[in-house]
Amino acid sequence: MKTADRMQGVHRSYIREILKVTARPEIISFAGGLPHPDSFPAERVAAAAARVFAEEGASALQYSTTEGYAPLRKWIADRYARQGLTVAPDDILITTGSQQALDMAGRALLNRGDAIVIERPGYLGAIQCFSMYGADFKPVDLVSTGVDVDMLESVLKRTGARYFYAVPSFQNPSGISYDKETRKAVAELMARYDCVLIEDNPYGELRFLGEDVPPVRCYMQSPSILLGSFSKMVAPGMRLGWIYAPDGLMDSLVRAKQASDLHTASLTQSILYRYLADNDVDAHIASIRERYKTHRDIMVAAIREHFPEEVATTEPEGGMFLWCTLPETVSAESVFQEAIKHNVAFVPGKPFYVDGTDNTFRLNFSNASPDRIEEGIARLGKCLRDCLA
Amino acid sequence: MKTADRMQGVHRSYIREILKVTARPEIISFAGGLPHPDSFPAERVAAAAARVFAEEGASALQYSTTEGYAPLRKWIADRYARQGLTVAPDDILITTGSQQALDMAGRALLNRGDAIVIERPGYLGAIQCFSMYGADFKPVDLVSTGVDVDMLESVLKRTGARYFYAVPSFQNPSGISYDKETRKAVAELMARYDCVLIEDNPYGELRFLGEDVPPVRCYMQSPSILLGSFSKMVAPGMRLGWIYAPDGLMDSLVRAKQASDLHTASLTQSILYRYLADNDVDAHIASIRERYKTHRDIMVAAIREHFPEEVATTEPEGGMFLWCTLPETVSAESVFQEAIKHNVAFVPGKPFYVDGTDNTFRLNFSNASPDRIEEGIARLGKCLRDCLA
Repeated sequence: MKTADRMQGVHRSYIREILKVTARPEIISFAGGLPHPDSFPAERVAAAAARVFAEEGASALQYSTTEGYAPLRKWIADRYARQGLTVAPDDILITTGSQQALDMAGRALLNRGDAIVIERPGYLGAIQCFSMYGADFKPVDLVSTGVDVDMLESVLKRTGARYFYAVPSFQNPSGISYDKETRKAVAELMARYDCVLIEDNPYGELRFLGEDVPPVRCYMQSPSILLGSFSKMVAPGMRLGWIYAPDGLMDSLVRAKQASDLHTASLTQSILYRYLADNDVDAHIASIRERYKTHRDIMVAAIREHFPEEVATTEPEGGMFLWCTLPETVSAESVFQEAIKHNVAFVPGKPFYVDGTDNTFRLNFSNASPDRIEEGIARLGKCLRDCLA
Repeated sequence: MKTADRMQGVHRSYIREILKVTARPEIISFAGGLPHPDSFPAERVAAAAARVFAEEGASALQYSTTEGYAPLRKWIADRYARQGLTVAPDDILITTGSQQALDMAGRALLNRGDAIVIERPGYLGAIQCFSMYGADFKPVDLVSTGVDVDMLESVLKRTGARYFYAVPSFQNPSGISYDKETRKAVAELMARYDCVLIEDNPYGELRFLGEDVPPVRCYMQSPSILLGSFSKMVAPGMRLGWIYAPDGLMDSLVRAKQASDLHTASLTQSILYRYLADNDVDAHIASIRERYKTHRDIMVAAIREHFPEEVATTEPEGGMFLWCTLPETVSAESVFQEAIKHNVAFVPGKPFYVDGTDNTFRLNFSNASPDRIEEGIARLGKCLRDCLA
């Protein structure tokens, strides 16, 4: 059956394909992007679900509004207020995970051939999604303080791109977080070049080192879009995220959402809201931060001990990922093939680039247990020493 | 903020706007398309949820495969087998309601300007969704036995359309169901004109009168797509549907789904599967059929008593909707304005047409209680007599 032109060039998620290779139990995998299951408040979500069924019954199983469950939208707006961001609940659309928030933004905004600035490396799910809308990606390098501001300005000047998609906090894949000065500079550039920031912030709450900084949105004077997710602060299997979009875009987003799936599940929205309202969410998030800090510290220490000096790595202050750069002549895909033989896995960096760069790879530190992290990094260190010898 | 070209001409769901007008408690509304909440097995779904949390815990809250929960896909395949349809679980993709199944079909198949045959009147959600992919609709009339087969053939011959979107069982909005001869004829035409049937079947299990007929897919010799939904047989608030797509299309659908929302919620899939596995689903569906037959019989009897003779109505053998046709010179939209004054509401037919026809309207009989149906139809009969006088 002949498929639509937009399906050409969009490959099956590379990561999901790699995950099939790395599912064998003898392999220690840093390839996935899964939160640690022990970080899910399963018993408390179970209690919330029981209360929803007891108190709401059939109404939690009925069709609902496209915009989302009103108390949940208000909860999100109230949480933004704590970051100094004034948001009306009506400016928030609940989505089926923040991947759908990306899809709604792409659907509502992008025409085929529109230029969109993206970080280099950039989030694979956004590359896949915006590719289907025919986006013309303009990559801008990441440096240790965030996006390269000078390069961003020159790309904006040169291309006239109207959109900049960014993950400013603990980025996937690099783990890099924009510092305050970079955030201010980005906000200023967006206003000057009439560019709309699409700010994806699934990991913002997962800071375990350094000083907290609010979303770039807090520094913006011009319109921008901010995406959020409950996948990392509660659990991903409910598929609940949101898009915050002021300035008259909401009507288009709601129409896009209606055509996509009518609305996100009423049942999961009610259960999540009940969980959030009945529990100390900050204490829960603090426990995730503590867990991931332990994982990250163990991984960083093991890397220092086992990796050859030629491999550069980021040392993230939050999130779930760490990024490694090999000497330019070394292919991460060929290292991956060797690593599998050593029973350890990662994601080669290639799919995170729109220009095919192949000397980087991503390590996830949230999902594996501390002893598996130590053992896996030791194996990977040995493999890297062999490959670079 | 300037939106994408695809957003032009896609209005907010007309029905959802009407529902806001008709939400006042004094209004008896036949406008919505909601199942009756008493038909939801809320207590049994609650028990299923409790069992899922007890037995699966965190794993029901983790990321999951794009294709969907394997036991649920197998359950759907097994149910098709009872209708004589051999389906592998791998040919089924779980979607966030069948609206998303429509969206995935549109995304994977339609290029801008592609001709697609649609029933006249046709399902509004499909018109909205396919419009975003730039579909060029070719309407074919419905008659009492289903789609007008002769007109379908001449449209296929004339336009060379490669797709036919149809709701052959208890269609929304008309309530019309294709008889066996029409199903066979459609199957034969699809093969002869190399046209792919996109068969939407959310109401197929809701037959309460006449002889059961299987999906058109059962008669097909050529490739086709079949969509299904748990919204009417269990509950819509879990947003669970599926797309059955053999013949090499599944890979594109999975990629489209990945880009859209990664996967449908693991939690709702696990809960629904547990409910289906632990309960007598056929007995549950039989109870819905019995309930809706009572509603339908009361509405049909009240229409016969109260409506003027010039108003033609369908008398459906299943589903949730009944369709009324006014004399050609009468506008259903102006009757709607009068009906609101009589505290009764319906959906004017206009948005179900791609050519603006305005002398029809839809009545939903699933949601209102029997005494409200009697009273509402009496009010509407009075209003119609006034309008046609």
